[in-house]
Amino acid sequence: MTKRIKIEALLKSSQTNIEVTVKGWVRTKRGNKNVNFIALNDGSTINNLQIVADPNLISEEILKQVSTGACIAVNGTLVESQGAGQKFEINAKEIQVLGAADPEKYPLQPKKHSMEFLREIAHLRPRTNTFGAVFRIRHAMAFAVHNFFNEKKFFYMHTPIITGSDAEGAGEMFRVTTLDAKNPPLKEDGSVNFKEDFFEKETNLTVSGQLEGELGALALSDIYTFGPTFRAENSNTTRHLAEFWMIEPEMAFYDLQDNMDLAEEFLKYLINYALENCADDLAFLEQRLIEEEKNKPANEKSEMTLTEKLRFVAENDFERITYTEAIDILRNCNPNKKKKFQYLIEGWGTDLQSEHERYLVEKHFKKPVILTNYPKDIKSFYMRMNDDEKTVGAMDILFPGIGEIVGGSQREERLDKLVSRMNEMGVPTHEMEWYLDTRRYGSAPHSGFGLGFERLIIFVTGMANIRDVIPFPRTPGNAEF
Amino acid sequence: MTKRIKIEALLKSSQTNIEVTVKGWVRTKRGNKNVNFIALNDGSTINNLQIVADPNLISEEILKQVSTGACIAVNGTLVESQGAGQKFEINAKEIQVLGAADPEKYPLQPKKHSMEFLREIAHLRPRTNTFGAVFRIRHAMAFAVHNFFNEKKFFYMHTPIITGSDAEGAGEMFRVTTLDAKNPPLKEDGSVNFKEDFFEKETNLTVSGQLEGELGALALSDIYTFGPTFRAENSNTTRHLAEFWMIEPEMAFYDLQDNMDLAEEFLKYLINYALENCADDLAFLEQRLIEEEKNKPANEKSEMTLTEKLRFVAENDFERITYTEAIDILRNCNPNKKKKFQYLIEGWGTDLQSEHERYLVEKHFKKPVILTNYPKDIKSFYMRMNDDEKTVGAMDILFPGIGEIVGGSQREERLDKLVSRMNEMGVPTHEMEWYLDTRRYGSAPHSGFGLGFERLIIFVTGMANIRDVIPFPRTPGNAEF
Repeated sequence: MTKRIKIEALLKSSQTNIEVTVKGWVRTKRGNKNVNFIALNDGSTINNLQIVADPNLISEEILKQVSTGACIAVNGTLVESQGAGQKFEINAKEIQVLGAADPEKYPLQPKKHSMEFLREIAHLRPRTNTFGAVFRIRHAMAFAVHNFFNEKKFFYMHTPIITGSDAEGAGEMFRVTTLDAKNPPLKEDGSVNFKEDFFEKETNLTVSGQLEGELGALALSDIYTFGPTFRAENSNTTRHLAEFWMIEPEMAFYDLQDNMDLAEEFLKYLINYALENCADDLAFLEQRLIEEEKNKPANEKSEMTLTEKLRFVAENDFERITYTEAIDILRNCNPNKKKKFQYLIEGWGTDLQSEHERYLVEKHFKKPVILTNYPKDIKSFYMRMNDDEKTVGAMDILFPGIGEIVGGSQREERLDKLVSRMNEMGVPTHEMEWYLDTRRYGSAPHSGFGLGFERLIIFVTGMANIRDVIPFPRTPGNAEF
Repeated sequence: MTKRIKIEALLKSSQTNIEVTVKGWVRTKRGNKNVNFIALNDGSTINNLQIVADPNLISEEILKQVSTGACIAVNGTLVESQGAGQKFEINAKEIQVLGAADPEKYPLQPKKHSMEFLREIAHLRPRTNTFGAVFRIRHAMAFAVHNFFNEKKFFYMHTPIITGSDAEGAGEMFRVTTLDAKNPPLKEDGSVNFKEDFFEKETNLTVSGQLEGELGALALSDIYTFGPTFRAENSNTTRHLAEFWMIEPEMAFYDLQDNMDLAEEFLKYLINYALENCADDLAFLEQRLIEEEKNKPANEKSEMTLTEKLRFVAENDFERITYTEAIDILRNCNPNKKKKFQYLIEGWGTDLQSEHERYLVEKHFKKPVILTNYPKDIKSFYMRMNDDEKTVGAMDILFPGIGEIVGGSQREERLDKLVSRMNEMGVPTHEMEWYLDTRRYGSAPHSGFGLGFERLIIFVTGMANIRDVIPFPRTPGNAEF
């Protein structure tokens, strides 16, 4: 056989009547005693390549093994397709079965499978159209992240995964240890002696690379992280994972306005990149959503298709309002007056719930919203105090259907104000001398934000559950594969 | 002040006599009562920008605070420099001190610091020339990794960090847990009840994404991982970290030859990318190495400079030999005959030690070597059995000064042979049904390899210790920052 060509490349061919070799997995086979049509997919594209197999050329023994899921190599002639739905097809001269797939046992037969079932066979689900599309888009988005920052001369920084500090307090942490699980060494007072653990202290999986990212920015100007982060929270929702990937840029000399500008530009860049580079996969996912909504009542159907939604976000300015303005809108809105919110908005100072964020984004503004200047008491110690001494320079970006997709702030660069906030909030300064050093020596105004990568992928793909946009989701009770 | 421009961009300017604003950290200040010269660095480049400050224009109070480590903003006129060593300088009109750095306390004074000391202040060391250069090159190499694979239509895959399987047996693992460290729940038989742990089973930090990567390749054709991996080994060497980043491509339909071709092309691409994109940083690091070696005896000095070494590797074919050929060379070489090896090579079958690898690479071939077809007993269960039934389709790439930089193999795609190897080597098949499924259904020949990212960075930067090429190294007893 000649050198294999990927189907994605082959479908861009400008030549026909050439001999080609393709390899991939059989999606379906149909036909009759005169001719067989094999839909072949190699994962390089959502599009199958049709193989026309003439039983006079390809033996019955071979064709019998060409069933859904089997891996085959095909050599033949690329010709223009006579049938509808494809430009090219291959008239097979030779087919080799590289790996059969017993039709009695192969779990991925060509029928509709539930998302729950596919999660149980997460090792095979990338072979489906939906997950192939999702994971190709996930790749494209990751590449776009790096491309965006590289072009802006940001430096990618690998912040530590195992950390000795629980400073940010962003959530419950996983302990990382090599101590004997049953009989840990104890100190004289009966507590566990972490001096005997691998790192000679108690260590955890990181919840954020931000604090270390700040160290990078205060030396290299602009950095970003893109790595796994962890929450040991017992959340069984469609929006939470115990292990997820986060992108955290951190920029010296950026104020809150610069920070918002960058985040909005970044999100629009990513969405435009998907529209330009993932058109086939998006078209498939869009059609999938339309099918899914067919049986829904009119008022539950989406107002826009998937690509319309993406284009809308990419082309329109995000709404920027302060927390205080948001509270005014919410206090006076119908759902609040009619007591339809579960949590009624009564005064200034409480955190917004998901229902409030969704109202602002989906009903009131009908577009992404950047909320700024939150009350200091509901935000982290490192956010910069505003002159009013009541609010901090935070900014959260809320997306339709997702809620918070970005959280960021200008950081407190003034040593005295930072230390007094840490003391107020019970953050131990003695464990954070390294962080405080950046405010002692050559401090600079700086800002940053975090983007939850899986939430971005949910938005771009239109998938309903965060477990379906990462190859092997980790949630309470689930660490399979 | 006008909008800030980064020094890297400014130094490419084609205009002079324009008003500009720069911000960054003071490296040095020298001068007299008539004029001050400030070397300013903002991390965007190794090159400092010279600021000329006239005490008649800039107050003494400000200039007093302009000390090493201070962060300042400078507005002034960009002019051609009269002095040697720089093309441009700025005649300052205004200087703002954004963050002072008390010269009595700031640890990074302009003098030579030991690498050990700088590791203790890893939160500040990115502000030095050496670490700035290393971390910019680290960024460039990470970007080049993504660029290489994206252009080849490989898909970036996030394999899980927390894993329930210890299948690869690549090394000691860290346990990930939320159980009470002191009083874990016990089962009736007295053992720890991991059913009550977060994931309802014992979980660890991954040692490799390969097995999950194979699942991706057998659906999407070509994937790669790039993520953190972990070893809980008590290794205090210049080549080992407990937390390090690894790149693991996995390709359907690749045999061992294709695998070697890709790995060699990849390494050469990365090195060429550094030569083309990191010239200033490499020139600095090259000079640094020359200075370091000045006092060494002639026979310990490097034969090539850093960039000569990089160019040599990028331009020459790697030597490809089998393990068996390597044993023949080693058995008959002088150090073996004269019993100068610590481990003498006597027969076929034992693993090569670092001294043997270095002899092959540094003395015998004087270039990178790809060793193939190792004895099955010293390699992992998933490597493809050769027809001789004695060797497997493994390939390791050995680099001068580094040793193994890449390890890979063709994978065993034949279910029966894979299961029998697992049984022979005591790998529990019942925990690996998901892995075996890919050989049951649509199996395909496939290959892959792993590149240790930090080892690549050591090679490209010429740094001597792996702890100095990652921002916050994790080693036994060290998880600071």
